[in-house]
Amino acid sequence: MGTAGRPRSEESHKAILQAAYDLLHEGGFARFTFERVAARAGVSRSTIYRWWPSKGALAMESAFDALSVELAFEPSRSPVDNFRTRLRLVAVALKGRPGRIIAGMLAEGQQDPGTIEIFTKLYIEPARRITRALLHQAVDEGFLRPDFDIEMAIDIAFGALYHQLLLGRTLERDWIDRLVDFIFRGALIEPSPIPN
Amino acid sequence: MGTAGRPRSEESHKAILQAAYDLLHEGGFARFTFERVAARAGVSRSTIYRWWPSKGALAMESAFDALSVELAFEPSRSPVDNFRTRLRLVAVALKGRPGRIIAGMLAEGQQDPGTIEIFTKLYIEPARRITRALLHQAVDEGFLRPDFDIEMAIDIAFGALYHQLLLGRTLERDWIDRLVDFIFRGALIEPSPIPN
Repeated sequence: MGTAGRPRSEESHKAILQAAYDLLHEGGFARFTFERVAARAGVSRSTIYRWWPSKGALAMESAFDALSVELAFEPSRSPVDNFRTRLRLVAVALKGRPGRIIAGMLAEGQQDPGTIEIFTKLYIEPARRITRALLHQAVDEGFLRPDFDIEMAIDIAFGALYHQLLLGRTLERDWIDRLVDFIFRGALIEPSPIPN
Repeated sequence: MGTAGRPRSEESHKAILQAAYDLLHEGGFARFTFERVAARAGVSRSTIYRWWPSKGALAMESAFDALSVELAFEPSRSPVDNFRTRLRLVAVALKGRPGRIIAGMLAEGQQDPGTIEIFTKLYIEPARRITRALLHQAVDEGFLRPDFDIEMAIDIAFGALYHQLLLGRTLERDWIDRLVDFIFRGALIEPSPIPN
């Protein structure tokens, strides 16, 4: 057997993620079912089950997949600058469809702890890992003081972002820059390892 | 006319707030109606309308009323310490019934912007005003640097608290203390105006 089947399989995989993302955006997680996704993507339900064990897993992967495209950027040599760039991109994404999906998952999770568990495992934790790596790098390379509380910085960054999102406030670039300045205040080592 | 009517009126007022609070806790805002509150409090609907123009106004006042009792404390001479004490008390309250009500309002508000508007006006804004006053006092009295970003500190404090709440994380005292330390890092003026 050659690789003849692979392109079709990859195409289905992609179609399922896109259909899932569209349905989540249209009707939220409460009305999200494998049946609807299968119909929209033009595949059988068993095809979906082959890749995803639950609707929560599919929902989160579809949102995370779409988000990771929007969050891609060319990193600079300064992890502090990369942290700022990342938060700016997250803010832009939160203004759009991923933001509505995330707000919806958080809302639905207040009635159903299982949704929060899935959301945490498949979205919050991966997002935190990326941010954590940037901040660890910033400490290791001498941009931030060694006693910088990385976990609290992450709690604060995402907490403040989601708070704005849930209260329907616009995530302006100026506000993001003030947030980043606040987070790094008193923690930056001068002069920075990279001369400006 | 004497004051004979007042005690009964005050009693009804209190009974309505208590009934509203209990109903919100039991069924959330979606199932909250003046009819149910009236039945529970043993008053007529018109009595409720006399004091509250909408169910949102009543819901928030009942939650805020209950919360303000839990948040009362004997202030110290240091507004920085008072900020810490206040956040600790907010955290304790968020672990209990007010936390469930707030999470429910935020969740329901994702489908209905009117709920967020009421919630912001009647709960978020008053809560921010109290915190803002403490931080302004801290700057004015020389505890915090004049360039301290008070509005961002408030966004961060409430953002981080609600984020933990919505993700079902326990609001431990140690975490609150780290949050407060993070917020004030690099902003405290030493020596403080009050010698320890």
